[in-house]
Amino acid sequence: MIRYKIIILILEVYSYMKTLVIISHPSILESSSQQFLLSVVPENEGVTVHHLEEAYPDGKIDVDKEHRLLEEHDRIIFQFPFYWYSSPAFLKHWQDEVLTDGFAHGRQGDKLAGKEFGLIFMIGVHEREYQAGGRERYSISELTKPFQAMAHKTGMIYLSPFTVFQFAYMTDEEKMELLINYQQYLTNTNDDSLEAKEAWIIKQLQKMDPEEIGQEADNIIQHTIELIEENRMSINELKVVIDQMY
Amino acid sequence: MIRYKIIILILEVYSYMKTLVIISHPSILESSSQQFLLSVVPENEGVTVHHLEEAYPDGKIDVDKEHRLLEEHDRIIFQFPFYWYSSPAFLKHWQDEVLTDGFAHGRQGDKLAGKEFGLIFMIGVHEREYQAGGRERYSISELTKPFQAMAHKTGMIYLSPFTVFQFAYMTDEEKMELLINYQQYLTNTNDDSLEAKEAWIIKQLQKMDPEEIGQEADNIIQHTIELIEENRMSINELKVVIDQMY
Repeated sequence: MIRYKIIILILEVYSYMKTLVIISHPSILESSSQQFLLSVVPENEGVTVHHLEEAYPDGKIDVDKEHRLLEEHDRIIFQFPFYWYSSPAFLKHWQDEVLTDGFAHGRQGDKLAGKEFGLIFMIGVHEREYQAGGRERYSISELTKPFQAMAHKTGMIYLSPFTVFQFAYMTDEEKMELLINYQQYLTNTNDDSLEAKEAWIIKQLQKMDPEEIGQEADNIIQHTIELIEENRMSINELKVVIDQMY
Repeated sequence: MIRYKIIILILEVYSYMKTLVIISHPSILESSSQQFLLSVVPENEGVTVHHLEEAYPDGKIDVDKEHRLLEEHDRIIFQFPFYWYSSPAFLKHWQDEVLTDGFAHGRQGDKLAGKEFGLIFMIGVHEREYQAGGRERYSISELTKPFQAMAHKTGMIYLSPFTVFQFAYMTDEEKMELLINYQQYLTNTNDDSLEAKEAWIIKQLQKMDPEEIGQEADNIIQHTIELIEENRMSINELKVVIDQMY
C-alpha cells in the first residue's frame, strides 16, 4: 500500500511541475517589461504569480502563508528589477522573514530541499558592461553569489538565471523570442537542450484549438510540427553516422 | 591668496577624517555585539553614528538629509548583521532611495567619488565555513560583490571589510582587541601597516588624563609609549642594515 502511494507521487512531479513566481517591484504597473511578461504567464500549467508588494501593502508578511505557498511548488522563482546589483528591499525583507530556521535551514529545516530555484531579472544596462573592464565591472554570476549561497544553504537546485537586458531597446522580434523563453523558463523541465525546447514548442503548438485559429492556420501548424519532428529524426540519424565514423 | 586656501584645506583633510557609520539592524537593543561596539564609538573625532531603523521608524527616508550627511563625511561605513549573505532589508531600501542618479552616479552624480567605503558586519557562523568546501561555500569577498560594485559605480574606494565572526564565543581578550580594531577602523587612515597602528595607539595613550587614571598608571603609560617608540627605531635600524646587506 505504501509503495503504491510513493509511485503516484513521483508520477505527479514529472507530469506537473508547479512553479511559484515571487515578484518584487515597488511600482509594477509602471514597468513595461514586467507587464509584458505578466501578460503571457501560462494558465492552467501550475504557475502561481505572487507579487509581494501587492500582497502585503502594509509590509507585514504572513509567514505561514508563504511557507504553505513554498511547500506547494516545485520551482521557486524570484522575479525583480536589478537594483544596486540585487533585489528590491521588499524581497530581501521576505527572505529575512520567511526563510526561517527550522523551515528553510537548520535542524529539520529541509522544506525547500530538492526544489529548483531561479532568478528572473531586468537590467537597464547592456549585457557587455557586466564583465571585467565593463562599466559595471562584475559578471552576473559574481553579483548573484548571495542568491547562489541562499540556494545552497536551503538545499535548492540553482538554475541559470533568466536575464532581460535593456528591454526598452528590444525589437518586436526579440520581444517575441523573450516571451517564448520566459514561458519555457516557468514551465519547462530543467533541461535547456535543443531537444527539450523542441518538445516544449510542439506541446504548445498542439494545444492550439483548430476552431479558434481557423483551418488554414491549423494546417500550417500541423506541417510545422511534422517538420520539427522530421528535423529531429535527421539530426538523430546524422549523430548515428558520426558515431559510426569514430 | 588662493594657494593659501588650498593648503589649509589639505591640512584639514589629513588632520580630521570624518566618518559616517550607517547602521541597519531591526532590533539593535537586543544585539549584544552591536551594543558592545556602540559603547566605544570615539567621541570628538568626527564619527557620526546613524541608525536607520531608529531615524526612520515609519520607513520613510529623508533623502535630502541623507545626501547632506553623505557629503559631510569622508568615510562611509555600512554596519549591520549579515542576513542571508547581505544587509537587512532597510539598508537595501536606503540604497535604492538615497543613491540617486545625479547624486551618486550618472551625469554629475559624483558626490561620493573619492570617499572611502567600508563594511562592518557580524556573522554567527565560523569564518572557516566561508570558503569552497565550507558549509557556506562562498567567501566574504565573493558574497560582498554587490557592495563592491556599488563602491565602483559611485567612485568610492572600497576598504577591506571589518568582519566579526561569532561574537558570542569570543574571550574577553578577543573582545578587547575587537574594540581597538573597531575604533581604528572608524578613525584611522586607510593604512593597516604596523607603523600606522603604532601611531594610532600612541595617540590614544597620550590622550589619557593623568589626573583621571592616577600617577602610577600614567607612569606605566609613559614607559609604554617610550617602549613602542624605541621598538620602532630598532625596527627601522634593522631595516637599514638589511638594505645595506643587499
